[in-house]
Amino acid sequence: MIKIAIIGYGIVGSGVAEVIRNNSSNISENAGVDIVVDKILDVRDFEDSPDAKCMTKEPNDIFENPEISIVVETIGGAGIAFEFTKRALSCGKSVVTSNKELVATHGPELLQLAQDNHVAYMFEASVGGGIPIIRPILQCLAANKITGILGILNGTTNYVLSKMRLEGKDFSEALKEAQLNGYAEANPTADVEGHDSCRKIAILSSISFGEMVDYRKISTIGISDISLADMKYADVLGRTIKLLAMSRRYDNGVYARVSPVMLPKTHSLANVEDVFNGIMVRGNAVGDAMFYGRGAGKLPTASAVVADIIDIVKHQECTKMMVWKMPKGENILDIKDFDSKWFVRLEVSNKLAALEYVEKEIGEISVVSLNGYEDELAFTTLSSKEGKLIEQIDSFADSKDISKVISKIRLY
Amino acid sequence: MIKIAIIGYGIVGSGVAEVIRNNSSNISENAGVDIVVDKILDVRDFEDSPDAKCMTKEPNDIFENPEISIVVETIGGAGIAFEFTKRALSCGKSVVTSNKELVATHGPELLQLAQDNHVAYMFEASVGGGIPIIRPILQCLAANKITGILGILNGTTNYVLSKMRLEGKDFSEALKEAQLNGYAEANPTADVEGHDSCRKIAILSSISFGEMVDYRKISTIGISDISLADMKYADVLGRTIKLLAMSRRYDNGVYARVSPVMLPKTHSLANVEDVFNGIMVRGNAVGDAMFYGRGAGKLPTASAVVADIIDIVKHQECTKMMVWKMPKGENILDIKDFDSKWFVRLEVSNKLAALEYVEKEIGEISVVSLNGYEDELAFTTLSSKEGKLIEQIDSFADSKDISKVISKIRLY
Repeated sequence: MIKIAIIGYGIVGSGVAEVIRNNSSNISENAGVDIVVDKILDVRDFEDSPDAKCMTKEPNDIFENPEISIVVETIGGAGIAFEFTKRALSCGKSVVTSNKELVATHGPELLQLAQDNHVAYMFEASVGGGIPIIRPILQCLAANKITGILGILNGTTNYVLSKMRLEGKDFSEALKEAQLNGYAEANPTADVEGHDSCRKIAILSSISFGEMVDYRKISTIGISDISLADMKYADVLGRTIKLLAMSRRYDNGVYARVSPVMLPKTHSLANVEDVFNGIMVRGNAVGDAMFYGRGAGKLPTASAVVADIIDIVKHQECTKMMVWKMPKGENILDIKDFDSKWFVRLEVSNKLAALEYVEKEIGEISVVSLNGYEDELAFTTLSSKEGKLIEQIDSFADSKDISKVISKIRLY
Repeated sequence: MIKIAIIGYGIVGSGVAEVIRNNSSNISENAGVDIVVDKILDVRDFEDSPDAKCMTKEPNDIFENPEISIVVETIGGAGIAFEFTKRALSCGKSVVTSNKELVATHGPELLQLAQDNHVAYMFEASVGGGIPIIRPILQCLAANKITGILGILNGTTNYVLSKMRLEGKDFSEALKEAQLNGYAEANPTADVEGHDSCRKIAILSSISFGEMVDYRKISTIGISDISLADMKYADVLGRTIKLLAMSRRYDNGVYARVSPVMLPKTHSLANVEDVFNGIMVRGNAVGDAMFYGRGAGKLPTASAVVADIIDIVKHQECTKMMVWKMPKGENILDIKDFDSKWFVRLEVSNKLAALEYVEKEIGEISVVSLNGYEDELAFTTLSSKEGKLIEQIDSFADSKDISKVISKIRLY
């Protein structure tokens, strides 16, 4: 019998206990041994919980308990979770987590600490909720050189965008509905501004490319500026707006970014709706492989945590760890140096004059018309070096015929 | 250094050699050791091949070579491939294959033989080409009770159906194009009649449910009877025709079948086009997870084979095998006992009389009209026990007003 401990009895932590309880016979069969939750650390009281008998407020009940070999960290954040994780690994206990912030921030250090102590640090649940993605990249695509990743990695923002597009709700209305349904937190900044997607693409890029991709250096734009009118324009263009996280490996570094894009409706990720996530991985032998499913939620995320636990149990004698190296120098390329094309909306006083001005500034464009928005000038640009192009677009408002850049969204 | 041998230098076998050659540094890093192809067995000559120096016609160069620890079997079929696989396993060599026919037919026996010899028998490439699916089910979803699988598992038939729907080609024309493009074999029966999908769903079901699902007992219908008119009717119904393989686990057995279905266009698998495969796996914790990618082809399939090789190399000291048990009795449930609903087209002499007759026989139906097909009677049925319903539909031609059942396709 393998005894485990859970630190943090929130949504995911209690889900892990629930999955282990409900699927015990399946889990025993797959792991080859019984797995039981022995201790759960949380500062709160849970007297009526089915796990009440395991609850403790004393960390040493876990760290100094030699019978506990695996610790599940589901506190979140990079504060106390970091301390507890280091302590567990140092005590020779493997750690499994869904904590993307901690992995994205301290991954290399914790993986090294695990290796030094001959235990494992695993985090399948940190990206894509229950969708298998980290293990497939590391194992199933191990024969490939991974060259790129493209994903809808955040369920909250995808839900909001789906509601806007399909039900004509505006951003704040759709966000409120997401909060009411438990899909968005009271403070939705991390989701809405793209920080959550940014941490996840950093983790996926680090494991795929074999060296640390620092999330703090990834250009990140969220969806809070996306309006219903933008959605309608996208529709006219045969596109749909998605918050896309992407990274590509080049010989001299990594091109990575998180931003809303107008995606062609025929793209495989265009049909990923609601709280679902979709992740495409490109390998030089396999081509494109896509993984799709619920990117969050109690039981799906717990499913991924427990899969890691089973993996550790099955391979106790031969845990060979993945470690991503620290880059030798700056490895994040400047997105300004890459070509991109954009959809732009301008508030204008004289449409014809504005059009002439824009064409003089940036050359050929395609004007887009939308019923009810005849007063503004909307267009798509050709592909051009992003740094200069964006500078030019931002300077349009200096023209006497253009009062404002209403929005600009990248075309994928 | 790990030396491997390849038996059968066809599309997949030569792809394995190519991937190992081209991605050697990635593979060495992931495996922790160099992997080289030492011998390739084939009765044919390949003097100009980059692998010419490895070629042999003498099986003992492999089986009696103690330096070779892993054998890749890419001959196909359940004849000589079966003999070679048994011999390799008995000699203490792990075997990796893409041979779905052999796995579906002799899987349990070969897995047992591998276990007895403390080696591995792995076949990720047997289903879904390069798409990770077997390892994700066994490892990433190990915390789940898997309750069902739904998949487009054959790229050839999906290509044919896509060409019919999108380009208005008829079945034989689309099939010819598939053959010209190398997507269908000269004798396309195994693909077109659903046998290939049947073996694949049998393998996925066996590993997911933990006991042998015998492909010979799975009801299988192919796509050779699907016409362009059927496609157009599907479109009117907001559906698309796909060859779907499915299985569901019940307390008393497994419901499994392969057949063309009319799938709602909003279904996640409806947008899987051309030679791509899509596989949905339902687990009681994760919900639905979908895997998507190129279901066949030289390098994608080789990618999956090499992933198995790396897995064996990394876990040599602790290969814990999956084995699926033989069922205690008959475990395939009779599809006739389950409810289903159908789309039906009838050739009629008197449409009104035929309609009255049909409604008297099977109750409420929804008539479907298609421009240019006003003479026939087309409709969808309500859901009803399949055995009786199909019997009734097949007997329609006994009525004096109905001359023929033109087609019947299940609605999903």
